[in-house]
Amino acid sequence: MNFEHSARAREFIERLNAFMAEHVYPAEAVYAAQLDRGDRPWRVPPVMEELKGRARAAGLWNLFLPEPEHGAGLSNVEYAPLAEIMGRSPIAPEVFNCNAPDTGNMEVLVKYGSAAQKERWLLPLLEGRIRSAFCMTEPEVASSDATNMRATAVVDGDEMVLNGRKWWSTGIGHPDCRFVIFMGLTDPQAPKHQRHSMVIVPLDTPGVVIERMLPVFGALHPPHGHGEVSFTDVRVPVSNVIAGPGRGFEIAQGRLGPGRIHHCMRAIGVAERAFDLMCERSLTRTAFGKPLAALGGNGDIIANARMAIDQARLLTLKAAWMMDTVGVKGAMSEISQIKVVAPSVAQMVVDQAIQMHGGAGVSDDVPLTELFANARVLRIADGPDEVHRASIAKLALKPYAARLGLGKG
Amino acid sequence: MNFEHSARAREFIERLNAFMAEHVYPAEAVYAAQLDRGDRPWRVPPVMEELKGRARAAGLWNLFLPEPEHGAGLSNVEYAPLAEIMGRSPIAPEVFNCNAPDTGNMEVLVKYGSAAQKERWLLPLLEGRIRSAFCMTEPEVASSDATNMRATAVVDGDEMVLNGRKWWSTGIGHPDCRFVIFMGLTDPQAPKHQRHSMVIVPLDTPGVVIERMLPVFGALHPPHGHGEVSFTDVRVPVSNVIAGPGRGFEIAQGRLGPGRIHHCMRAIGVAERAFDLMCERSLTRTAFGKPLAALGGNGDIIANARMAIDQARLLTLKAAWMMDTVGVKGAMSEISQIKVVAPSVAQMVVDQAIQMHGGAGVSDDVPLTELFANARVLRIADGPDEVHRASIAKLALKPYAARLGLGKG
Amino acid sequence: MNFEHSARAREFIERLNAFMAEHVYPAEAVYAAQLDRGDRPWRVPPVMEELKGRARAAGLWNLFLPEPEHGAGLSNVEYAPLAEIMGRSPIAPEVFNCNAPDTGNMEVLVKYGSAAQKERWLLPLLEGRIRSAFCMTEPEVASSDATNMRATAVVDGDEMVLNGRKWWSTGIGHPDCRFVIFMGLTDPQAPKHQRHSMVIVPLDTPGVVIERMLPVFGALHPPHGHGEVSFTDVRVPVSNVIAGPGRGFEIAQGRLGPGRIHHCMRAIGVAERAFDLMCERSLTRTAFGKPLAALGGNGDIIANARMAIDQARLLTLKAAWMMDTVGVKGAMSEISQIKVVAPSVAQMVVDQAIQMHGGAGVSDDVPLTELFANARVLRIADGPDEVHRASIAKLALKPYAARLGLGKG
Amino acid sequence: MNFEHSARAREFIERLNAFMAEHVYPAEAVYAAQLDRGDRPWRVPPVMEELKGRARAAGLWNLFLPEPEHGAGLSNVEYAPLAEIMGRSPIAPEVFNCNAPDTGNMEVLVKYGSAAQKERWLLPLLEGRIRSAFCMTEPEVASSDATNMRATAVVDGDEMVLNGRKWWSTGIGHPDCRFVIFMGLTDPQAPKHQRHSMVIVPLDTPGVVIERMLPVFGALHPPHGHGEVSFTDVRVPVSNVIAGPGRGFEIAQGRLGPGRIHHCMRAIGVAERAFDLMCERSLTRTAFGKPLAALGGNGDIIANARMAIDQARLLTLKAAWMMDTVGVKGAMSEISQIKVVAPSVAQMVVDQAIQMHGGAGVSDDVPLTELFANARVLRIADGPDEVHRASIAKLALKPYAARLGLGKG
Repeated sequence: MNFEHSARAREFIERLNAFMAEHVYPAEAVYAAQLDRGDRPWRVPPVMEELKGRARAAGLWNLFLPEPEHGAGLSNVEYAPLAEIMGRSPIAPEVFNCNAPDTGNMEVLVKYGSAAQKERWLLPLLEGRIRSAFCMTEPEVASSDATNMRATAVVDGDEMVLNGRKWWSTGIGHPDCRFVIFMGLTDPQAPKHQRHSMVIVPLDTPGVVIERMLPVFGALHPPHGHGEVSFTDVRVPVSNVIAGPGRGFEIAQGRLGPGRIHHCMRAIGVAERAFDLMCERSLTRTAFGKPLAALGGNGDIIANARMAIDQARLLTLKAAWMMDTVGVKGAMSEISQIKVVAPSVAQMVVDQAIQMHGGAGVSDDVPLTELFANARVLRIADGPDEVHRASIAKLALKPYAARLGLGKG
Repeated sequence: MNFEHSARAREFIERLNAFMAEHVYPAEAVYAAQLDRGDRPWRVPPVMEELKGRARAAGLWNLFLPEPEHGAGLSNVEYAPLAEIMGRSPIAPEVFNCNAPDTGNMEVLVKYGSAAQKERWLLPLLEGRIRSAFCMTEPEVASSDATNMRATAVVDGDEMVLNGRKWWSTGIGHPDCRFVIFMGLTDPQAPKHQRHSMVIVPLDTPGVVIERMLPVFGALHPPHGHGEVSFTDVRVPVSNVIAGPGRGFEIAQGRLGPGRIHHCMRAIGVAERAFDLMCERSLTRTAFGKPLAALGGNGDIIANARMAIDQARLLTLKAAWMMDTVGVKGAMSEISQIKVVAPSVAQMVVDQAIQMHGGAGVSDDVPLTELFANARVLRIADGPDEVHRASIAKLALKPYAARLGLGKG
Repeated sequence: MNFEHSARAREFIERLNAFMAEHVYPAEAVYAAQLDRGDRPWRVPPVMEELKGRARAAGLWNLFLPEPEHGAGLSNVEYAPLAEIMGRSPIAPEVFNCNAPDTGNMEVLVKYGSAAQKERWLLPLLEGRIRSAFCMTEPEVASSDATNMRATAVVDGDEMVLNGRKWWSTGIGHPDCRFVIFMGLTDPQAPKHQRHSMVIVPLDTPGVVIERMLPVFGALHPPHGHGEVSFTDVRVPVSNVIAGPGRGFEIAQGRLGPGRIHHCMRAIGVAERAFDLMCERSLTRTAFGKPLAALGGNGDIIANARMAIDQARLLTLKAAWMMDTVGVKGAMSEISQIKVVAPSVAQMVVDQAIQMHGGAGVSDDVPLTELFANARVLRIADGPDEVHRASIAKLALKPYAARLGLGKG
Repeated sequence: MNFEHSARAREFIERLNAFMAEHVYPAEAVYAAQLDRGDRPWRVPPVMEELKGRARAAGLWNLFLPEPEHGAGLSNVEYAPLAEIMGRSPIAPEVFNCNAPDTGNMEVLVKYGSAAQKERWLLPLLEGRIRSAFCMTEPEVASSDATNMRATAVVDGDEMVLNGRKWWSTGIGHPDCRFVIFMGLTDPQAPKHQRHSMVIVPLDTPGVVIERMLPVFGALHPPHGHGEVSFTDVRVPVSNVIAGPGRGFEIAQGRLGPGRIHHCMRAIGVAERAFDLMCERSLTRTAFGKPLAALGGNGDIIANARMAIDQARLLTLKAAWMMDTVGVKGAMSEISQIKVVAPSVAQMVVDQAIQMHGGAGVSDDVPLTELFANARVLRIADGPDEVHRASIAKLALKPYAARLGLGKG
């Protein structure tokens, strides 16, 4: 048992922290100001391209990719602390080409993409020249139950015909977004987990319509945004199917494991950023003759936050380590656990940091409401808490049921 | 002991509910659309004036005012259920001329205003022709501790000279906002609760500058908004002081009691609206072959919400009844209690309603994020939870300290 | 809406509080000492009979009975504060002949008993000369689901033949316990709620065996105790059936309503007693130079307890008032709500009072662990929290389902 | 980062689990029966000596001691999983000579004892031939604040004179208890942390009186028990002082670190045992036609317990690892964190396991109430939650205060 990060990871942590301090944190206000220059919000603030250039030059690029030929070749448990650091700033993940959903899409293409798909879509993604989106969740059905999916991806000769409506397609508003990965039902008669396909759809394919951009707690999150997208008789070549028709679920499963770890580690970063703000405020704001930190239960709030964050981080690292050592399947309970714990802890700590700030906390003078919305959304995205809890319970009961000679709990 | 509302209250409840169903709920989308017609957000959506006219004609006007010559002559416990009903729709309170901070300002003027002040400022407020704001909270200091207040209101001959910076002046962005009530330090040598004054300041007085409008969870809340306002050598006649210099605290105390009840009852309405949405969603959305209501802990969530709301309402009604029977001073613990309980319950229920909606919950397809922000802010405004808890504990310990012969707890 | 108790209730409150202060609280230690004189714990401490005599003489007797010919003729909402006061001392309810399960049994006999049953069993109960028990819950099945009941009560000519095993028969260890009310399955073919019967069984009937006395958190609760009782071919006359065969469920429903209110009001009393102890300790114990009340989050704990208790009391009073005005059926949600809320609040406050006492809190120097066990058990007895929550949710969803045109939620 | 236990630890885990399964769990009922044979509860059940013999023979003895010459030579992080396993059974720690407070006393003697002290007191403790107690906490003062301590240990020539009253001296009722380590004030003028001494006091020294045995949730915990002990002019040679007068605090600090880890790991074991019982019950008990596990929120309860336990374990392991790598001082926050987290989690899980069992849960049919009391007490012993939270907050704020140039938070 060893709680120390590998030498490799420690070195990246140090370099990344230094880069954040020197380049990213100071750029937050610049980014906001460039974005606010109002008439064209769906434009990339120039500072982002500048930061991306610096990050790439510094070798802090595609750190999420375990494949050494494309990325840093880090294991999940090595990447975890880096994702946490990036999570501290809403603008950071993109700076290092480590932002969702592009990361998940790149992983899918690395693992399942054909040579042609890699050439055309993976390469520019790896270089940060284009952006992409992922079209899975649907507005009409509870997407927590994947068998509900209504969109279709039907083979018609050497073409796929896509129909359906998707939403929460994050990043689709980005001016550089060039394609989406679309998931749809291909063969309703196939075994349950071989019915769906994942298909690469260039965004300018006829029949693809961004119906509207969805607000999150009232904010549209430019320049990425979250789209509701309709697909009407959209036709792409069968060669755009990833790994072949019917393998959508298999890919989705593989995609979600690391993606959830990344989300959760970033959520830890969100919590730590809020913790910083809360502690600083508690020491510098005075009421009734004392700093807030010395008043009433504020010390308890700080202590409870400290304990909750530290535990959530350890659980996330453990999950990452298990993915590295026994694979996604063996780490299923742990992955679901962090998916419940990390966003909840982040939401709680941000909420308390807001409270410690009083009126400033709900304004834009501190980034807390933005962090809050991100944490809150994460309790719904990638499977809501409820679905993960059900899965944790099921996995926990399994050995007892076996020992008791019961079929299943 | 009788938990039934008075005949008078029941009649108003019925009429108000009918009006809400016929006119207000259907107007919510109209209001949003008129507001969104984007180029001029700080304009009153025409539907509001139309609704105000109808409400006034229907005798559903100024219901909050206990003085029969101006309002409905209802006691606090009679008005409470009406405020709750209005709280169900973000646009409703203004429809009935019962929106903060105008209600508090009207109460102050009714109770403490001179004949001239009433003539000039109260009358148009009562008629809904103008709006007003309240300038108390300051950005530089913890306003939960009122002795921190830095703004000054100094007597200079027959003029008051005002200086300072205020924020969270709600309603100051409204095109009809004509004046603010400003609170400042007049005599630092006077006994602790006789140092401050409340002064009426026409918004167009030289030296009054709205520095910026503050976002709440990213939203500016047009057309009312929340302003940060600077006062630089602002001069108004001494006759603009309400009840005379040095009586600011006394007025503030009186102002806050009913105001808090109103806020809290509206928060109950917020919780009930979220409860409606949560229950409807839980019955109509299906996953894993069942309505959400039948899945996992969702029934518990609904039951817990039901219990929390019902208890919060009873506590608020009790506080209102005590204000009516023993006055603000005797109801001090109860008022602080509801100020902690009602917004917390509202926040919790709205959060769970969001979760029950999945992605739709954080979008604008349902009004939940708006309700969330309102509930969240209320845990800070009018005294943060922490200050009220401290006050509840102090009042609770008092009799024990007395019995034990101790000075104070 | 009026939160004041009736004049009649206020007068009883005053007299009861005076009696508690003069006679009951001082007798607690005497009772414990007499019980502890070790060799014969299943004996009634003499001080109890003395107190009962005084209480009866003072007219503080059978206050729970709404029927004026037998008791005080108080409504539920009038009796509620009296039950709360009695709940403050573990020995008090019996002093006033208001202890479970005798109260429930007396109610059943008053409402459903034949003249002969009343003469033989009700009268001595009313006079406090005998005690009784209630045999419903069974060890082998989840009694929260009443259809699980396995015990049988079969008509055989003019006799009933009873078989089965019951447990948690409270009071069965009392030396004056003379009979139990036994519930068993009579006709499995009858409609679901007409299958069971309630039968009076003298404790000395052949075939009735107290198998063991059950400890609660390690304590046997002499001299009442909780028994596990077997019934083997127990024969009693058919005239011992209450209200006739097949009416067991109907009686059980009626019995549980007021009984739950009583339990819950006593739980409020438990919480208030713990609150007293917590507050006194917080003022008199010093650490780091300050009374505990002034340290860290202790003020918050006190405030939160105050709010939770006050809300739970109001909800319980509302439930009592509804039972008085619309009956058990109309108050079903409220009764389930208090059954969840009151014991939970009591458990929480007692737990916090324990913490405030440090080591003394878990010892017998204060009665907190006894109060804790009582509160904890109540979350299981009379229907566990889970069953009541399910029922609250079901009732809450009903109107939405109706409005949406759905069958049921 | 590596979450796998060392090969050495894994081997011990395997052997210990096998021993528990073969010898300890089956002996639980035997032990209880031997203890219950009532007339002499303060006698060691013979099965305990038998088990100790077996454990020693199996080399599962004194595993807690990091010093290879006396114990297993395991690091804290290696011993942690073993302590957890022992914590699963209330009788297990003593079987392996790893029970508090003897472990702490042995550690103190190993580290600070003179050769003579080791010969006379350490040796028989190591062999499990005698037992000991620790006399630190006092009834009259809040022992969470060590400066409150009133007991005195004054040097008088070559003797120490001890006076004072201590309580919660665990193990003092054991028939083999031969000595206590007493802590008292020696020099009030010395620097704050050099005022106290730790003194070995044979239990039969004149002036040592066990005033009473303290119940915990009503139970006396024979044969160990918890004593309230008075010391009146107790005289022992100065050579009985451990490490010399004035070093009491230094020793206490060193003693508490590993002791807390042990307690917390055992608390994790308590939680896991309760989790076992809860899961088994949820699968085998049926209501409304389904196993409890499939009803309402029970799956969520199981999932939440799983997440809480897993996180608490990781945090405890991290604290142990830090003690091993950076020492007690560097691990101060983590030690306080687990001291808050582990007992709370254990209490919560046990409480939920009780609820899942219904009436059986509060009886002695399952060991849950005993586990509950142990977990509950641990939130008070060794520093109450409140003190540890304050310390966590203080340590958390330190770097912020430093960065902000503030003295202290």
